[in-house]
Amino acid sequence: MKKMEEKILAEAAILPGGVLKVGSFLNQQVDTVFMKEIGEEIRDLFRDEEITKILTIESSGIPIAISAGFAMGLPVVYAKKNKSSNISGDCYSTPVKSFTHGDTNNVVVTKEYLSADDRILIVDDFLAHGSALNGLINIVGQAGATVVGCVAAIEKGFQMGGDSLRAKGYRVESLAIVDEMTDNEITFRRD
Amino acid sequence: MKKMEEKILAEAAILPGGVLKVGSFLNQQVDTVFMKEIGEEIRDLFRDEEITKILTIESSGIPIAISAGFAMGLPVVYAKKNKSSNISGDCYSTPVKSFTHGDTNNVVVTKEYLSADDRILIVDDFLAHGSALNGLINIVGQAGATVVGCVAAIEKGFQMGGDSLRAKGYRVESLAIVDEMTDNEITFRRD
Repeated sequence: MKKMEEKILAEAAILPGGVLKVGSFLNQQVDTVFMKEIGEEIRDLFRDEEITKILTIESSGIPIAISAGFAMGLPVVYAKKNKSSNISGDCYSTPVKSFTHGDTNNVVVTKEYLSADDRILIVDDFLAHGSALNGLINIVGQAGATVVGCVAAIEKGFQMGGDSLRAKGYRVESLAIVDEMTDNEITFRRD
Repeated sequence: MKKMEEKILAEAAILPGGVLKVGSFLNQQVDTVFMKEIGEEIRDLFRDEEITKILTIESSGIPIAISAGFAMGLPVVYAKKNKSSNISGDCYSTPVKSFTHGDTNNVVVTKEYLSADDRILIVDDFLAHGSALNGLINIVGQAGATVVGCVAAIEKGFQMGGDSLRAKGYRVESLAIVDEMTDNEITFRRD
């Protein structure tokens, strides 16, 4: 069994509305000892690729992206959800809908942190409908950079965002794919 | 010269309105090789303390807190700026004013991630007026836990938040203290 699957079974809770609560190790609270192993797993998955930079989105993507960045020795860029006064100059920007929060944010990355030469690994905590990953792919495209692949800590396989990206030819690696979730049982996808 | 001071002189820019732009290594883009050294510096500063957990606030505090967490082998808890549907149960909560964004957020931490036994190191990227650190200290107090100390990557010494906390008896370690900033020069505080 994969590390992330074991951790989910040991620590996650299922909340009403199909929310998988992983606040004890992945968001809210970050288990850095576990995340170090996860970073190394991501490094190993993409060992044969020439990646120049990791891209994620605030806030809950940052811990796993930083963990991968530590393991791979690569810079991490994180997209922000609102243009704020301390982002200067021109930005790449795209709307991203949050199904969790029920709103749409303008997601921005300052242009100087992505260039056409970059080979980007996109990392996020959850992959469900795929809105965040699609938004980040859009931003990489605006920069003329290359998407080498996408990593999600946890994919909700029943919400199709991951499979839709795979069908378009993207390499999507999820560290655990939940194919079914009832009030008291989680079923993972097996290859 | 301290590592953070050197990095600021090498990479930071001063924007209109007294904004110190450190997007190339601390927020927006995170230089993970540099941040690994910074995490180790924080670990060394608090080597003699029994710390159980690191507390920060989303989003830009997360990279430096995770870097410290990696170096110290400690879990990192990050306060969220809005109560969202995936925070279940009771939360500790306090208002925090953002001078950068000009608004006040309700900052929350789920109660189960802080307990009265915890000895907390509070970590953030910037320390200016001290609103974020004071909010986090307030939350630690609500949990009945102990504040061992506070770390800021960069303190704006002329905005008094750090000195005000020191005057109250808190141990505040800033990795660089900017005492003066003109359009083309940065002056660091010397002990």
